[in-house]
Amino acid sequence: MGFKHKDIIALKDLSKDEIELLISTAENMREINSRDIKKVPTLRGKTIINLFYESSTRTRTSFEIAGKRLSADTVNITASTSSATKGETLLDTAKNLEAMKPDIVVMRHAVSGSHYFLSKRLSCSIINAGDGAHEHPSQGLLDMLTMKDRYGRLDGLKVAIVGDITHSRVARSDIAGLTKMGSHVFLAGPPTMMPPGVERLGNVTVCTTMKEAIQDADVVMMLRIQQERQGKTLIPNTREYSRYYGLNPENLKWAKPGAMVMHPGPINRGVELSSYVADGASSHVLKQVENGVAVRMAMLYHVSGGTLVTE
Amino acid sequence: MGFKHKDIIALKDLSKDEIELLISTAENMREINSRDIKKVPTLRGKTIINLFYESSTRTRTSFEIAGKRLSADTVNITASTSSATKGETLLDTAKNLEAMKPDIVVMRHAVSGSHYFLSKRLSCSIINAGDGAHEHPSQGLLDMLTMKDRYGRLDGLKVAIVGDITHSRVARSDIAGLTKMGSHVFLAGPPTMMPPGVERLGNVTVCTTMKEAIQDADVVMMLRIQQERQGKTLIPNTREYSRYYGLNPENLKWAKPGAMVMHPGPINRGVELSSYVADGASSHVLKQVENGVAVRMAMLYHVSGGTLVTE
Amino acid sequence: MGFKHKDIIALKDLSKDEIELLISTAENMREINSRDIKKVPTLRGKTIINLFYESSTRTRTSFEIAGKRLSADTVNITASTSSATKGETLLDTAKNLEAMKPDIVVMRHAVSGSHYFLSKRLSCSIINAGDGAHEHPSQGLLDMLTMKDRYGRLDGLKVAIVGDITHSRVARSDIAGLTKMGSHVFLAGPPTMMPPGVERLGNVTVCTTMKEAIQDADVVMMLRIQQERQGKTLIPNTREYSRYYGLNPENLKWAKPGAMVMHPGPINRGVELSSYVADGASSHVLKQVENGVAVRMAMLYHVSGGTLVTE
Repeated sequence: MGFKHKDIIALKDLSKDEIELLISTAENMREINSRDIKKVPTLRGKTIINLFYESSTRTRTSFEIAGKRLSADTVNITASTSSATKGETLLDTAKNLEAMKPDIVVMRHAVSGSHYFLSKRLSCSIINAGDGAHEHPSQGLLDMLTMKDRYGRLDGLKVAIVGDITHSRVARSDIAGLTKMGSHVFLAGPPTMMPPGVERLGNVTVCTTMKEAIQDADVVMMLRIQQERQGKTLIPNTREYSRYYGLNPENLKWAKPGAMVMHPGPINRGVELSSYVADGASSHVLKQVENGVAVRMAMLYHVSGGTLVTE
Repeated sequence: MGFKHKDIIALKDLSKDEIELLISTAENMREINSRDIKKVPTLRGKTIINLFYESSTRTRTSFEIAGKRLSADTVNITASTSSATKGETLLDTAKNLEAMKPDIVVMRHAVSGSHYFLSKRLSCSIINAGDGAHEHPSQGLLDMLTMKDRYGRLDGLKVAIVGDITHSRVARSDIAGLTKMGSHVFLAGPPTMMPPGVERLGNVTVCTTMKEAIQDADVVMMLRIQQERQGKTLIPNTREYSRYYGLNPENLKWAKPGAMVMHPGPINRGVELSSYVADGASSHVLKQVENGVAVRMAMLYHVSGGTLVTE
Repeated sequence: MGFKHKDIIALKDLSKDEIELLISTAENMREINSRDIKKVPTLRGKTIINLFYESSTRTRTSFEIAGKRLSADTVNITASTSSATKGETLLDTAKNLEAMKPDIVVMRHAVSGSHYFLSKRLSCSIINAGDGAHEHPSQGLLDMLTMKDRYGRLDGLKVAIVGDITHSRVARSDIAGLTKMGSHVFLAGPPTMMPPGVERLGNVTVCTTMKEAIQDADVVMMLRIQQERQGKTLIPNTREYSRYYGLNPENLKWAKPGAMVMHPGPINRGVELSSYVADGASSHVLKQVENGVAVRMAMLYHVSGGTLVTE
């Protein structure tokens, strides 16, 4: 089975088979990253533009390394140095970049929907590296790959997601992917951070306490408090937030023995996760980052048509 | 015939034959950009430094992609992170970079003449990516290539250039190149934006109204209002500017049927160009950007000696 | 003899043999930089991350060019766009980068000791590109290579180092390296800029005047006044500083005939060095920069295990 899409914008748009294909390709790509010579000629002669309207060390670096390991040429553009400061519209910037014949534009943008908008108007592939509070599909895929590494499957898992669900594109991509794969997602967070109506999605349960979500969970996914993205009034007191929605060795005991702890990073230590948990045996945080490069290699590979170029 | 110059700083310094050589090489380079594997080994092992003292997404990205498609190693330096903030002189910065043995330095700098200054003092090649209000030769070349695509020739064209002629390095390069190739240039713009004496150049006519310039033109080149480069007092009112010097479907009718509309970008929509014209069938704006990569590949190739490296 | 270290953090940690090995490898690497095709496949498929928490055009560019000439993939991260702004700890940032499987992290950081801290915790190689006022080993090595070029040896030289010794990581690396190689270092500078106890190091003499240090010196190394790094009160008057500790044609006569003048750059002209001296026949400043690329190639090569990959 092949991958039929020009773009990858949201996991909710992909079928179960397509998600499985991306994850199994990532498993193969991971092997490249463990070699002494971490490079294959798969995307030689392809041009990838990383267009970041919001800064992100880890996501941009991960996509850049993924592109380079596939031998693509990568070009970075950040908003602060871009034409955006000269008042150009997003569409004009994108059409101009398209005219330089990139094969793939990896874009992070604060506005949900900007990727769909460009997708219909550009012939090159678009990969969403995070769009406002909508989706972050590479994060969703790397989360699922990390869970599959631990449990060998993605169906029938109980996954707790705790924190600011409303503003989290990570939560949205995780929910979309995991429920398609047959897992059940339990959400907990302050009432102001719970999107209305989310409980009507299949295989999603909104919990009133963190304990209810974590109870017997196979995976506890803690979201980052995005202090830079929301008004300060929502979190008047990180100490209070941490008391009700932070993960520590005590409340982690509610989960299944050996449950995985995950976090998209960067961690606010002492807020979402105590350092003891973040650095403990349950934590799969760095495994997530490692899988991120492999997942992004798989995404770049499949939007490029998935044909192997050999030298 | 070969290309004899170490540097490309201004079209006014090149002969008609040299300009033709650069444009015909760009036509060949363009073929590479349409391939599936957009890469040739021509400049493998060469080092190109993109030294930008003014930010520019499109020009820097275009040169970077051009270099990478020729297999050169490209290194970006922007002024905000450079030694300029430590008080080093331009010559010291440039001599230091030269000591790292780059083959080509592509530089944008706000001071007209800075490229000539370095040209005499550095052994590596220097390509001008825009110097103050002096010249922008890669833009001039891509403009001419785009006109040649449409008309098959560059002699005998009537080209209108409208806007802030005084502050426009694009206008200067276009005038230098087009008049050498045998075209006639008609200039229009507010009197404060018309360089005194420009009418004494051969094949250049200064018009008192936009209509006079556009009348029967083969090409209408609209310049960008550089609000970031000049005092606000010159353009007290962009609506008024647009009324007298903006291009819209009505005044475009003055030009020859099928005339080309061009703009160096980024466009201030509704100021220099109405969106209807910018996005219409007459607009060659994106074709200009596409040709930009090919022209820059040709420039990099010829200053490097124009010898083909095969693997 | 091989190079046994995973990291290069400080010259004081290296043996005389190891320093000699790095310098002789740099001599070989230099040959590559003078070729028409300045590239060898030695580090093909290796990933180098340049992680700069302080901006530095010349050091970052030099490491980036060094990596590219060895065919490594290089990824640049600067602090201003990094997760540091999201409050992540250095260790978390570094562990995250490590999870992406870089082979080498080249880091500049304002905190002395940060490289040792990471060295014990990361499996990839770490190269110190400057850490606070501690060491700058690539600068020390390139200084020694430049002296060896001139004198054919590094033992028995009289090297004067003049300026702000206390805050200079360059001085620290030069002292550590040169004294190991058998040279004698004479220090001069304002009393507030002389680290207490430095005279107890072997082969180091603290002088009370600049004349005493320079007298009969083979090398005069002038340090940069780091106005951006220290309180303004230390240098109330650069003119006064220049009078007592600046090098000019008059006081250069105190040194041996034909003595070398060196400076790590960027030069504050008229402060540490008069322009006459900086641009004169005695100045080896640009030779230092040229040797910098070769030295960094040698460092990257040896921390990678020093095995040659042939295509």
